[in-house]
Amino acid sequence: MKKLRCVLIGATGVAGQQFVAALAKHPWFELTSLAASTRNAGKPYAEALKNSNGMSGWFVSEPLPEWVAQHVMQSGDEVRAGDFDLAFSAVEAEVAKVLEPKLAATIPVISAASAFRYEDDVPLIIPPVNSVHAGLIEAQKARRQGKGFIAPIPNCTTTGLAISLAPLEQAFGVKAVLMTSMQAVSGAGRSPGVTALDVTDNVIPHIAKEEGKVEIETKKILGTSSAPHALGVSCTCTRVAVLDGHTEAVHVSLKKKASAAEVAAIFREWKGDVASRGLPSSPNKWIEVHDDPYRPQPRLDRDVHGGMATSIGRIREDSVLENGVKYVLVSHNTKMGAAKGAVLLAEMLYQQGFLGNSAGK
Amino acid sequence: MKKLRCVLIGATGVAGQQFVAALAKHPWFELTSLAASTRNAGKPYAEALKNSNGMSGWFVSEPLPEWVAQHVMQSGDEVRAGDFDLAFSAVEAEVAKVLEPKLAATIPVISAASAFRYEDDVPLIIPPVNSVHAGLIEAQKARRQGKGFIAPIPNCTTTGLAISLAPLEQAFGVKAVLMTSMQAVSGAGRSPGVTALDVTDNVIPHIAKEEGKVEIETKKILGTSSAPHALGVSCTCTRVAVLDGHTEAVHVSLKKKASAAEVAAIFREWKGDVASRGLPSSPNKWIEVHDDPYRPQPRLDRDVHGGMATSIGRIREDSVLENGVKYVLVSHNTKMGAAKGAVLLAEMLYQQGFLGNSAGK
Amino acid sequence: MKKLRCVLIGATGVAGQQFVAALAKHPWFELTSLAASTRNAGKPYAEALKNSNGMSGWFVSEPLPEWVAQHVMQSGDEVRAGDFDLAFSAVEAEVAKVLEPKLAATIPVISAASAFRYEDDVPLIIPPVNSVHAGLIEAQKARRQGKGFIAPIPNCTTTGLAISLAPLEQAFGVKAVLMTSMQAVSGAGRSPGVTALDVTDNVIPHIAKEEGKVEIETKKILGTSSAPHALGVSCTCTRVAVLDGHTEAVHVSLKKKASAAEVAAIFREWKGDVASRGLPSSPNKWIEVHDDPYRPQPRLDRDVHGGMATSIGRIREDSVLENGVKYVLVSHNTKMGAAKGAVLLAEMLYQQGFLGNSAGK
Amino acid sequence: MKKLRCVLIGATGVAGQQFVAALAKHPWFELTSLAASTRNAGKPYAEALKNSNGMSGWFVSEPLPEWVAQHVMQSGDEVRAGDFDLAFSAVEAEVAKVLEPKLAATIPVISAASAFRYEDDVPLIIPPVNSVHAGLIEAQKARRQGKGFIAPIPNCTTTGLAISLAPLEQAFGVKAVLMTSMQAVSGAGRSPGVTALDVTDNVIPHIAKEEGKVEIETKKILGTSSAPHALGVSCTCTRVAVLDGHTEAVHVSLKKKASAAEVAAIFREWKGDVASRGLPSSPNKWIEVHDDPYRPQPRLDRDVHGGMATSIGRIREDSVLENGVKYVLVSHNTKMGAAKGAVLLAEMLYQQGFLGNSAGK
Repeated sequence: MKKLRCVLIGATGVAGQQFVAALAKHPWFELTSLAASTRNAGKPYAEALKNSNGMSGWFVSEPLPEWVAQHVMQSGDEVRAGDFDLAFSAVEAEVAKVLEPKLAATIPVISAASAFRYEDDVPLIIPPVNSVHAGLIEAQKARRQGKGFIAPIPNCTTTGLAISLAPLEQAFGVKAVLMTSMQAVSGAGRSPGVTALDVTDNVIPHIAKEEGKVEIETKKILGTSSAPHALGVSCTCTRVAVLDGHTEAVHVSLKKKASAAEVAAIFREWKGDVASRGLPSSPNKWIEVHDDPYRPQPRLDRDVHGGMATSIGRIREDSVLENGVKYVLVSHNTKMGAAKGAVLLAEMLYQQGFLGNSAGK
Repeated sequence: MKKLRCVLIGATGVAGQQFVAALAKHPWFELTSLAASTRNAGKPYAEALKNSNGMSGWFVSEPLPEWVAQHVMQSGDEVRAGDFDLAFSAVEAEVAKVLEPKLAATIPVISAASAFRYEDDVPLIIPPVNSVHAGLIEAQKARRQGKGFIAPIPNCTTTGLAISLAPLEQAFGVKAVLMTSMQAVSGAGRSPGVTALDVTDNVIPHIAKEEGKVEIETKKILGTSSAPHALGVSCTCTRVAVLDGHTEAVHVSLKKKASAAEVAAIFREWKGDVASRGLPSSPNKWIEVHDDPYRPQPRLDRDVHGGMATSIGRIREDSVLENGVKYVLVSHNTKMGAAKGAVLLAEMLYQQGFLGNSAGK
Repeated sequence: MKKLRCVLIGATGVAGQQFVAALAKHPWFELTSLAASTRNAGKPYAEALKNSNGMSGWFVSEPLPEWVAQHVMQSGDEVRAGDFDLAFSAVEAEVAKVLEPKLAATIPVISAASAFRYEDDVPLIIPPVNSVHAGLIEAQKARRQGKGFIAPIPNCTTTGLAISLAPLEQAFGVKAVLMTSMQAVSGAGRSPGVTALDVTDNVIPHIAKEEGKVEIETKKILGTSSAPHALGVSCTCTRVAVLDGHTEAVHVSLKKKASAAEVAAIFREWKGDVASRGLPSSPNKWIEVHDDPYRPQPRLDRDVHGGMATSIGRIREDSVLENGVKYVLVSHNTKMGAAKGAVLLAEMLYQQGFLGNSAGK
Repeated sequence: MKKLRCVLIGATGVAGQQFVAALAKHPWFELTSLAASTRNAGKPYAEALKNSNGMSGWFVSEPLPEWVAQHVMQSGDEVRAGDFDLAFSAVEAEVAKVLEPKLAATIPVISAASAFRYEDDVPLIIPPVNSVHAGLIEAQKARRQGKGFIAPIPNCTTTGLAISLAPLEQAFGVKAVLMTSMQAVSGAGRSPGVTALDVTDNVIPHIAKEEGKVEIETKKILGTSSAPHALGVSCTCTRVAVLDGHTEAVHVSLKKKASAAEVAAIFREWKGDVASRGLPSSPNKWIEVHDDPYRPQPRLDRDVHGGMATSIGRIREDSVLENGVKYVLVSHNTKMGAAKGAVLLAEMLYQQGFLGNSAGK
């Protein structure tokens, strides 16, 4: 099979690096160009990662592939969409607003940026949860008169939450959710990122814009492709001294009463949308349930099933909310919650025929 | 003024050490004896703190007073209550069950242990919140036929929560509260404590028995001396890599609607019970309100007003709960939440004539 | 091939856990019994790992094999050597003094304990460095009239240092070494271990007995089987907030002058003793050399080649010492420096016919 | 007394913030203007500290004085030296090269930057160690034809080392020193600073240019004002997960043999240069000696004597170096090692009549 030629824009940030790792040996997609800001264009990738003291900023546990290290980057502004079958985007929202539509005129853009997540004709898909929203793509292409389209993934904090709510919604209905997150520093990227001076021996009780994103995105993902879900969502997002893996303490009000045991059983049995199964990046299980009250822990559980599963434990009934249950989840913010999750989405769209398959096959 | 002669039982644990620091230069109370387990009896205090590798386990930021370092400890079992006017207790709950009643037959016992917190005739007092519960002491003495009594302080995680709820209860009424804590390692003490192997680059999603304590204690403290408050309380308690200072994300359902600004104003104006003001350990303010959304942070805010104030920020309305508001608080778990809070309670009881004042004055 | 039946004594400590992981799927050795203190005898292994709050103390990144979790442990005192072909020992030195000779009367004992490291007839072997010392085993058996013997591995801090010195000794001769270590918390085990209260935001400048061990062991390992090497060794051992992987800053005085480039080349080319190559636990390379001045780092480099390689970087000439060179190394303290290193030693001894091969083959 | 009017250039960096804290209530010096880069000119100081997410970057434990928070900064380029009696400089070396000479044409510049440290006519003074080097100032003024002059302080890693070597030099003579540092993250400032992603669960074995600075500066400080000391200096500088306080493991070769006890006694008795005593920022003791082998620790000892003392422990003889001794020290890198150390230097120069005293007195 001929692989799809892919360009990655925003290649040097933490999210971009995760795309490099996720695509390093991909069976369907091949990274044929890396793009970054004008400042870094013309530099080999490994050089561009260095800070002003010469220290590498490769923040991914997998080693940097040698050919990528030496790959000379081009400027994001100068990417010619026609040279590629597909673009992955890891740029900041402001840059995404300009670059993504330009590319989408010609090719599909799978994006980790928030710029277009909230547009009505843009699907916000977590493959096991709402693969059916892919139907919006046709409407988007028609309306925007593009050969390509933009398909963003949600914020990394939304991902684990929405995955945990999906089986509850299907089994019992969800009325409302209150969530407090304890988020990893890798989610903040590099600029400004989280300095050791800020987070050592500390908790930072605020992450700019995060709570609003989670509230809107959760409703969009759990809704239909034409209307958001009516559930209430309220959250507090904090940063803790953890490298990778977001932990979330979740309290849910269900439409029908369910015991902790019933909730655990529903999580255990959940298989996710058919369209999300068996893809190269799909885990064996979307949800890993723990009985040990000391689990999940981000350091121990973030990498389970390749960082693509959501680990859930401490399932208890909640005495305060109507038909309340509560639990703690851990989700890998830079794997399922970012680049690997975006690659999974690309795989699903490819499988469904949305990705230049006429050209590619 | 002649100071009250005090004995400290459980002197070598983290809580015991905090009592040593809190009483080091106290104007009313004088530590005249330190007691510990039989294993440590006969040893100078500083020796008993060492682990099997000879490393000191003095975990308090204030230096260990020289006379305490050299003080030869007695066994808790052999303390003769008649030699003292007052006992402070920092022993484990199992030990407290035996030792505290023995001492209370003769002298008042101010305790950080949980053993008697849930008895009907035992008040659970945070001085600015429910000083009026001290009235239970007479009933306790009568029923238990003691010259002394037991007055415990609440769990360190309850303290900040109850302080933040008290002004809300007074102004608006509180229907229910959902809380997620991110607790400091000092709260776990030394045995077993929290190892660096567990908590580095991690969050531990469970603290044994903690959630149940917070739920029962909050109701007892906010209630009358004869009946617990009817509010709902649901929480998730986690451990993070912070040395001191518990952070809590709180969602409250009020009886009357209030805006974030009204809630902030109520917190700012709150003065606490009259009986709690002007004591040697009282802070200038019980609650410090932050407008900066990045505050409070445990490292920056735990020591404000001598570690005796609760810092509150991120006050927002909550769209999910009825008349909902939400905020984040930081409370120093080993100061206001433990030994210094117990000393504050002793000060209030002394001021009110409950502490051997006939002898002492 | 029939696997050798192995008993592990001291199975519940951090070192013991690493043995469990290292032996989980071993091609030659099979763990048929786990032993621990009398207190834990009769308990399933997973139960014995829990602390008094019910929290598991499994500190190894690999998952605990299910059969081991449920394996009912016996008391170390009651192990019948005749039931096994080989014993691995991860007990404390005091216990080792008693148990290891008892077992060694019948079977070989491969030990991570320090109890017998300094005996003249006990070899202290790092397979790539001094495999030839295995010759001492015959003398030991003769002198102690045992069917088995004791073969300990060195302290985890010695291991990386000695491996880095071996190629220098062979190429240039080593006169003296000064070393400062920054050691991981996993090296301290669990009892007393390193609490988060001690090491967070901190460096602990002393590790009990560690410096003396490194000084004596380095001389023994680099010497002949009958006499220690005459080099000078001076070190300062400290503890830092790192989970796994010891970092050592090393300054060496060579007998012959060598440039940094020559030293780097010698490290790159070094293959270790023939006897150590191609064993199941042998890495592809014993030494990984870094040109990037920001490497090696314990988090990034500890697991290279399965945690069995020593990573060396920052190779520079030293202007102060005679024929001085200096470098920084990282060595995995619980893999090559402990259990996996002990299994490697067992493999080498098996290959050379020292391990019950008459019975086993 | 009329206070000297001071301008601070480079006010927003971590070092600049420390100057703000050190000068907040100074009896002799008054900060009358704060300058920063053109980008920040015109902004209130507190605004300029915020990162792109609105998070404050005030990294000093003392609270930010309200008047400073609201002080509108000017551009460093536009500072008119004639408006001030004295300048403090906390700018980067590149900026210092341009700005410091411009200011020094008119007023004295006390600088934390490295730009002029290595010039022959520029003294590099630690007041208790080499106050006599102040004599170079006259030569500098003559040669550079300035009314003012530049007086830099050393690198924060040099400071503690040189202070520990001074009494040894005076008592025994020092031939050579080998040092490994474990440095705090605050030393790296904010740009690029040290991200939590780099240093959590890690050691970084290199700090750009640091080792060269320590080697040259130590020789200059311990030498005469006309020639560097001939001692050998070799070091390895690493970064660890510590907020404040550099730890250094030091091995020294003395000219005359000395026991550990003699070295400890010399440290205990050392009083520093007469010129350095009794200044507003002078500590009661320059060196604090520890007998407990687990001290000094940066978290416990960095703030002793206001962060102005060097804590030394683990004093032992070194068997490898000629007349060798070894010890571990902790020095506060942003107090004695940076801004407060610079203020101390200004105090000493003021006392000696070097600072606009004609105007000031």
